[in-house]
Amino acid sequence: MDYQQILNTIQEEMSYRDVTGKVASYIPELAKVDQKKFGMHVYCGDQKNFSFGDSEEKFSIQSISKVFTLAIAMRLMGEDLWDRLNVEPSGDPFNSLTQLEYESGIPRNPFINAGALVISDILLDQLDDPKQELLDFVRKITGDDDIHYDKKVASSEKSTGYRNIALVNYIKALGNIKCDVEPIVDFYFHQCSLAMSCKQLSRAFMIFANRGKILETNEKILKPKTVKRINALMQTCGFYDEAGEFSFQVGLPGKSGVGGGIVAIHPDNYSVAVWSPILNEKGNSELGMKALERFTTLTGVSVF
Amino acid sequence: MDYQQILNTIQEEMSYRDVTGKVASYIPELAKVDQKKFGMHVYCGDQKNFSFGDSEEKFSIQSISKVFTLAIAMRLMGEDLWDRLNVEPSGDPFNSLTQLEYESGIPRNPFINAGALVISDILLDQLDDPKQELLDFVRKITGDDDIHYDKKVASSEKSTGYRNIALVNYIKALGNIKCDVEPIVDFYFHQCSLAMSCKQLSRAFMIFANRGKILETNEKILKPKTVKRINALMQTCGFYDEAGEFSFQVGLPGKSGVGGGIVAIHPDNYSVAVWSPILNEKGNSELGMKALERFTTLTGVSVF
Amino acid sequence: MDYQQILNTIQEEMSYRDVTGKVASYIPELAKVDQKKFGMHVYCGDQKNFSFGDSEEKFSIQSISKVFTLAIAMRLMGEDLWDRLNVEPSGDPFNSLTQLEYESGIPRNPFINAGALVISDILLDQLDDPKQELLDFVRKITGDDDIHYDKKVASSEKSTGYRNIALVNYIKALGNIKCDVEPIVDFYFHQCSLAMSCKQLSRAFMIFANRGKILETNEKILKPKTVKRINALMQTCGFYDEAGEFSFQVGLPGKSGVGGGIVAIHPDNYSVAVWSPILNEKGNSELGMKALERFTTLTGVSVF
Amino acid sequence: MDYQQILNTIQEEMSYRDVTGKVASYIPELAKVDQKKFGMHVYCGDQKNFSFGDSEEKFSIQSISKVFTLAIAMRLMGEDLWDRLNVEPSGDPFNSLTQLEYESGIPRNPFINAGALVISDILLDQLDDPKQELLDFVRKITGDDDIHYDKKVASSEKSTGYRNIALVNYIKALGNIKCDVEPIVDFYFHQCSLAMSCKQLSRAFMIFANRGKILETNEKILKPKTVKRINALMQTCGFYDEAGEFSFQVGLPGKSGVGGGIVAIHPDNYSVAVWSPILNEKGNSELGMKALERFTTLTGVSVF
Repeated sequence: MDYQQILNTIQEEMSYRDVTGKVASYIPELAKVDQKKFGMHVYCGDQKNFSFGDSEEKFSIQSISKVFTLAIAMRLMGEDLWDRLNVEPSGDPFNSLTQLEYESGIPRNPFINAGALVISDILLDQLDDPKQELLDFVRKITGDDDIHYDKKVASSEKSTGYRNIALVNYIKALGNIKCDVEPIVDFYFHQCSLAMSCKQLSRAFMIFANRGKILETNEKILKPKTVKRINALMQTCGFYDEAGEFSFQVGLPGKSGVGGGIVAIHPDNYSVAVWSPILNEKGNSELGMKALERFTTLTGVSVF
Repeated sequence: MDYQQILNTIQEEMSYRDVTGKVASYIPELAKVDQKKFGMHVYCGDQKNFSFGDSEEKFSIQSISKVFTLAIAMRLMGEDLWDRLNVEPSGDPFNSLTQLEYESGIPRNPFINAGALVISDILLDQLDDPKQELLDFVRKITGDDDIHYDKKVASSEKSTGYRNIALVNYIKALGNIKCDVEPIVDFYFHQCSLAMSCKQLSRAFMIFANRGKILETNEKILKPKTVKRINALMQTCGFYDEAGEFSFQVGLPGKSGVGGGIVAIHPDNYSVAVWSPILNEKGNSELGMKALERFTTLTGVSVF
Repeated sequence: MDYQQILNTIQEEMSYRDVTGKVASYIPELAKVDQKKFGMHVYCGDQKNFSFGDSEEKFSIQSISKVFTLAIAMRLMGEDLWDRLNVEPSGDPFNSLTQLEYESGIPRNPFINAGALVISDILLDQLDDPKQELLDFVRKITGDDDIHYDKKVASSEKSTGYRNIALVNYIKALGNIKCDVEPIVDFYFHQCSLAMSCKQLSRAFMIFANRGKILETNEKILKPKTVKRINALMQTCGFYDEAGEFSFQVGLPGKSGVGGGIVAIHPDNYSVAVWSPILNEKGNSELGMKALERFTTLTGVSVF
Repeated sequence: MDYQQILNTIQEEMSYRDVTGKVASYIPELAKVDQKKFGMHVYCGDQKNFSFGDSEEKFSIQSISKVFTLAIAMRLMGEDLWDRLNVEPSGDPFNSLTQLEYESGIPRNPFINAGALVISDILLDQLDDPKQELLDFVRKITGDDDIHYDKKVASSEKSTGYRNIALVNYIKALGNIKCDVEPIVDFYFHQCSLAMSCKQLSRAFMIFANRGKILETNEKILKPKTVKRINALMQTCGFYDEAGEFSFQVGLPGKSGVGGGIVAIHPDNYSVAVWSPILNEKGNSELGMKALERFTTLTGVSVF
């Protein structure tokens, strides 16, 4: 089977009707999304594209944005970044605040909220206009200028984002936040509100499947070592409490978001994005997980 | 460079003198090991072998044995095993007991001690003579009958193993241990005392690099799905609190033990074992980690 | 109202029918107790006695025994005891194992199980025949030789006491247990199995209401400072997670047990014991708490 | 000895030179206080006064203010207050955030910061001008209008109060905060900045030693039951991690603040305030603890 046949098979086999989870509701604006949406897009090393469904419809990428900000922070700071962040799985969400306390405000990894907020602080501290520069970065690696923040989502998150505001204040009390709290969370809620389609996401993530170079232009954006580090982090920490399960089911480095998107890569090979807004109890897209499991099973290619 | 040249390079570059860690001391018998020991062995899909140093000297494999008992338990129970164990990284050693409490006695994964002890319980419950059957299993996949328990190490562990005895009692109180406590810890301390060389370990682990079949005989010992699950678990949970770091530095599924051994595999390709008894602060062989990092760098092959 | 009138009022007002809790079931033998039992006994400084109901029927005093073993340990070690135990409320039962880890095996106070087990270790270490000497001590301060261990209860606890065995092993791993595990838990389960009546308990606890002297003989058994320390500990730590509530409702130093007994004292004044086996969700006798609250309200005497 | 003789003895025996702790430094303004300051004031049921040293110099009462706001909140809400707060010791400061998470945002007691912030929220929600009404309340029960907020201290706390801001946001995320975050912490930092002398504090706390009535006017300000509850809470939760030690050493309900003040009461008898800014490692005035221990020893009166 070629990729398009595999995608067709997945589309035929699966439906939002088969899943039992719920759309994320804690961000009011996200709760409004049509739960029937389902799309998938594969972008290959030879620039070929395959897709089905709502693959060109934009959705809120949420935590997937943490991979972009991590990439920018690593470009700015190199390995010095790891003085302010750790690279290990965090284990349990409940313990994260206690972990912070015992570990002197050093978040376990850049993909838990505490870690992403430290990265927001770094970008705010080192960039003149971090919102614009993040947008520029994502547009550049995607080769597509039609990528924007969704202001409604950003302000919707802000209205209920007390837990994240608590985190920033807590880390600041522990000495690992430099900037003021308000602009950090403002930037963070904006990055989470980035609206992208499966097509755009899969193109953007080719940078991580292509050792840091933009496929079309061969322009080197990230060092190979940076890409290796990011991919290793996606493998071990990309799926909240379900990193182990994803590692087994799908076997690829990837990152999910509560908007229902998941993107995964196969180094030197392809990038694949899927979107279905219904989440399982661990907060990952239920149909997205299944679709990717089928995808690596049908292609017969997995890390393990 | 071919594998032997790469190994030679590693041997020339590295020495126990460059490391700053310590030999494990909490098990009296392990503290006696000569810290100068250093050996490495690569076993390839075409049955070719490459090695240097003390690669044929036996050492205490300790937690590496957890991969063998997991394989046996999966053969006995299949996916039902996951009713009694989870498959996620545990995050923090300090929290493990609290985690057990909140998660009703279901250990986070089979490679933390709590998980390995539940597996000991399963083997004890389902096998007539688990010590002998574990030995038979390891000898069979290694193709070598000269593998034994080190009784001195086993009884040395028993004399200081209060924390493990505490764990079994605690899990039993939470309802996830069936057998009596004493035989469980006796079996557990025996499995940890298995003495194997790098050569033997790398041969044994070819089963995980060869989709469950013994390379020489083509005999199918484990299902491919079982192997995939085990490899995914080694990738995310094989290195205590250093799984993320190992995933980045080495980029292979693997497992370490406090005896100073590490074994890692590249699916469909090779298995590599290294031994140096000096441990870093996370409890993994300091020289072993460096040697494997060089190995994947020099071969240019990594998962990410 | 005199004390007998007050007790009569309490007996009239209250019945096991009004409570909604359950008899302790985790110790099989305790689950067999008749839940209708209800008795109360007041012993005054002038040796007068008042009582109602099943005040002379023996029941399993369980954790109330921790006050006796603490008294013996303080007599043996004086203030040195606090090198091995702390004197603060523990907060949360779930955290107790994590607390032990962070606090190097020093239990929060002598009335949580971890603390009582350290005291068992001390008694075992320092006394020739701790079971007999505990019995002698309790008989002496009660002035009554008809006090015995309930062997059925002791062995019933042993059969399900995995959590306590876990605790001893864990503390031993952390270096704060000297003796072997088995005799410690054997002694501990025996002390918990002590069977005493409300009448006997209230007489025994007069030692804490009488600055350490036996009321009848004026024999000095404990130093006044020891008694003050024990009373302060009963006030802040005597009621598991309900110390604050008991302090408000009753306002006296006291100690409860899962057998349904509670004993409290008013220094220089009286000692009062109550028994009803139905426990509230915090593990304290539901009717016992209410009865004592009425008692201090009707007598108009409370610490606060 | 009469009270004045006892105070004289204490003043002679003790000096700031004998203590080994440090002045609180995390609030910049507090760090400037002269560490030689030492004063004590006793206020009796017959309105007699006794004192020594800096007993009329004002200092920052800090957490002692939590008793005043609790009293106001109980007057407003009665027992309904306990739907939003618990009444038990919290055990461990490190665990407080985890505790909040597990206990759905219900703080353990009104004297930990989380609890005091919930009370700030209640006062802000129910009072028109909470800052003024708190001032009015304290002035009234003290019978002294010369009590003010120290604006420098309030803004000094605000500049470093990230941990408290984190707490409010976190509790709001868990649903137990109604008002906006900013005015809550503004009010909280103001209440902590209240400047009072030992003389004023001891007079104010007579309300808790006099069953809720102002001694001079006999005006009933609080219900006796409210006072009993507050006193029980001071006994079990008034001294951070040192409630058990204080209960033993001093044996009175009391409350301390990081400004170095401690106030304690003996119901129906007296109120005593002491001030020395050097804190022990638990955050309580080192000399203050010793002085109160000597005071209850020399008077021979203690709860236990």
